[in-house]
Amino acid sequence: MAPQLDGFFKQVDTLSDHFIDRLRKAVAIPSISAEEARRPDVVRMGEWLADELTALGAEVEKRPLGKQPGKEHLDLPPVVIARYGNDKNKRTILVYGHYDVQPAGMEDGWATEPFELTIDSKDRMYGRGSTDDKGPVLGWLNAIEAHQKAGVDFPVNLLCCFEGMEEYGSEGLDDFIKAEAKNYFKDADAVCISDNYWLGTEKPCLTYGLRGCSYYSVEVSGPGQDLHSGVFGGTAQEPMTDLVRILASLVDTNGKIQIPGLAELVAPLTEDEKSLYGDIAFSMDMLHESLGSTTSIHPDKERTLMGRWRYPSLSVHGVEGAFSQPGAKTVIPAKVIGKFSIRTVPNMEPEDVDRLVFKYVEEQFNKLGSKNKMNCTLQHAGKWWVASPKHWNFSAASKAAERVWGVKPDLTREGGRQ
Amino acid sequence: MAPQLDGFFKQVDTLSDHFIDRLRKAVAIPSISAEEARRPDVVRMGEWLADELTALGAEVEKRPLGKQPGKEHLDLPPVVIARYGNDKNKRTILVYGHYDVQPAGMEDGWATEPFELTIDSKDRMYGRGSTDDKGPVLGWLNAIEAHQKAGVDFPVNLLCCFEGMEEYGSEGLDDFIKAEAKNYFKDADAVCISDNYWLGTEKPCLTYGLRGCSYYSVEVSGPGQDLHSGVFGGTAQEPMTDLVRILASLVDTNGKIQIPGLAELVAPLTEDEKSLYGDIAFSMDMLHESLGSTTSIHPDKERTLMGRWRYPSLSVHGVEGAFSQPGAKTVIPAKVIGKFSIRTVPNMEPEDVDRLVFKYVEEQFNKLGSKNKMNCTLQHAGKWWVASPKHWNFSAASKAAERVWGVKPDLTREGGRQ
Repeated sequence: MAPQLDGFFKQVDTLSDHFIDRLRKAVAIPSISAEEARRPDVVRMGEWLADELTALGAEVEKRPLGKQPGKEHLDLPPVVIARYGNDKNKRTILVYGHYDVQPAGMEDGWATEPFELTIDSKDRMYGRGSTDDKGPVLGWLNAIEAHQKAGVDFPVNLLCCFEGMEEYGSEGLDDFIKAEAKNYFKDADAVCISDNYWLGTEKPCLTYGLRGCSYYSVEVSGPGQDLHSGVFGGTAQEPMTDLVRILASLVDTNGKIQIPGLAELVAPLTEDEKSLYGDIAFSMDMLHESLGSTTSIHPDKERTLMGRWRYPSLSVHGVEGAFSQPGAKTVIPAKVIGKFSIRTVPNMEPEDVDRLVFKYVEEQFNKLGSKNKMNCTLQHAGKWWVASPKHWNFSAASKAAERVWGVKPDLTREGGRQ
Repeated sequence: MAPQLDGFFKQVDTLSDHFIDRLRKAVAIPSISAEEARRPDVVRMGEWLADELTALGAEVEKRPLGKQPGKEHLDLPPVVIARYGNDKNKRTILVYGHYDVQPAGMEDGWATEPFELTIDSKDRMYGRGSTDDKGPVLGWLNAIEAHQKAGVDFPVNLLCCFEGMEEYGSEGLDDFIKAEAKNYFKDADAVCISDNYWLGTEKPCLTYGLRGCSYYSVEVSGPGQDLHSGVFGGTAQEPMTDLVRILASLVDTNGKIQIPGLAELVAPLTEDEKSLYGDIAFSMDMLHESLGSTTSIHPDKERTLMGRWRYPSLSVHGVEGAFSQPGAKTVIPAKVIGKFSIRTVPNMEPEDVDRLVFKYVEEQFNKLGSKNKMNCTLQHAGKWWVASPKHWNFSAASKAAERVWGVKPDLTREGGRQ
């Protein structure tokens, strides 16, 4: 299979210490996007990445994204974009990744220094960002370098889009991509996002779908300020009483959403789609291991994967404005805001979901006969995405993965990333 | 009425600047019991109070209460106890008050510096602790001093018990009182707690009852750690889903507790008791003003006062372990703890309340058919108290209040202080 690539793969092996060293340098930069004081490190990481790409012969630009919304004293780190190759006879692949990381410290339970790449006795590498997402980003640089050193022509043109705010909501990226879709990125024939999960630890996956997310707030308010339950308990209608009743009406223990009309928006399961689930390397044991419990909804693998990928779900996340600390406080909160979200799937249009949610929550509140005020709003909506797993980009990725891993990758979806 | 006291009352007027100055000195000591760094100020306040009492001729002791539970590096402030007078022919009154205060700062919305006594154009005094509870405590010192300067014999023996941790759960006081009930406090014929509220702003009140409080936690847990709702939503049973369903089953919008058997524990309303409510200086307007809204449960004054004083109430205070910040977070919390409390009244024995609550919550959880774990526990219980408003101590207090205020005080209960 693909003998013309033997030289390339040999170079990969030869260069492995160099590649690990490249990852070590990247891990050592604490590019934590959520921490204001680390912003210079995020910028430094972007510059380092741009320099590495330039050294490999890519045309690189660091594009400013302006000020950080809500923190206008802070510049967003630049998005590093690059082009490698400009051959009209080749396909052009747009590669996405991010060079920022989440916070990490020994006090969070790390066994090794998070910003120091550490290799254990089984050759497993530990370091913040080594998998999410510095490793995958550097994989593209390594691929370019190994092609060059093997004297093998790079088979596609690459466009790179590496951002520095992914772990903090990808601030500024949407506008940038919209603006450049028909400009810098106009040649892209396919997109490859190097920032996904495997289902387990043994078999690679190619992701062809993603659930969306519609996130709602339900605010119930009454009194002008928080009250003491000793003084006012039994005389005033309490917003928290109303809110828990509304939240309790949304979904049952087995995940069945109680909002009428929502299930009807979901695309029916075809025999063709159904046949995809059986072969996937996943088991209830794997689910229970990742849950850390056996509190699963469904008894079998197929229905569990469908529950994660192709059916909607509703989660109640918490309550803002109520007592949330350890211990006891006898407060009657004056205004409480329940938070819940719905994972959406084809063919649920976000606007239809909103309409059904608002109508149902309103009805539930009206049933209570409360004098309190209720207001249900959408915080944000991200739409689901699904592609055909038979498209040429998936075929190519599947072949490549099989060449390296010796096994056909699973074609999977994701439950939702936001 | 009581002409032998005219000299005393004259002295009160003469000494008023001196009394205000005494309060000013007390307010200036930021004796905040909840703030570790202020502990030396709490101790200083106790010492100042002890010195003032000693100067008036009382026998004073500062009793240590040991280390603060959970903060063993911190000494509790002393309880200041004192005896003034030891005449076997007089009754002995035990007076309780506290010399600590809650935190306060301009940033909390104070219009004036909280630790500086400020007098406005209507002679109203502002300063942290001026009413709760430094003013009432100093009132006893002022009464002693005015008697002395008027040459009027003090009509009772006084025992004082002034603590420094009231605003932080009265840590250490229970054990101290139990130990001294038959020792230092053994001569007490009646107790006067100088730390109560008036119902409104025009008419003094004498309190003859207090609701109790039984505070519960309901913990629901399942997964081994918090989960991401994108990845696990629709595959795992969510503790928060179960918890809001349990919390929703406890009480309705109009405060009706749904726990069977609880209402049967409540002492029936007698005609005698019913007759007490009509005259009390309270109105629905006063309730609405203190609520800051018109979201009251009952339409009339009598039923509202009963709802506050002589019937139980149930409040849901909040949820620990769930997402409680502003904004959006798509977490499935692994373990959530709902907090609720019941205000108890005669004749609800706390043990009976516990039994009914545990049974009901267990039943509600079992109905869900959940694989999650649920555990309902009592955090703390404080028993209700009720006395006869016809006892001589209330008659005496009533006469005294009428002499000063020109109006018979209302005989009230309190809804609960904890």
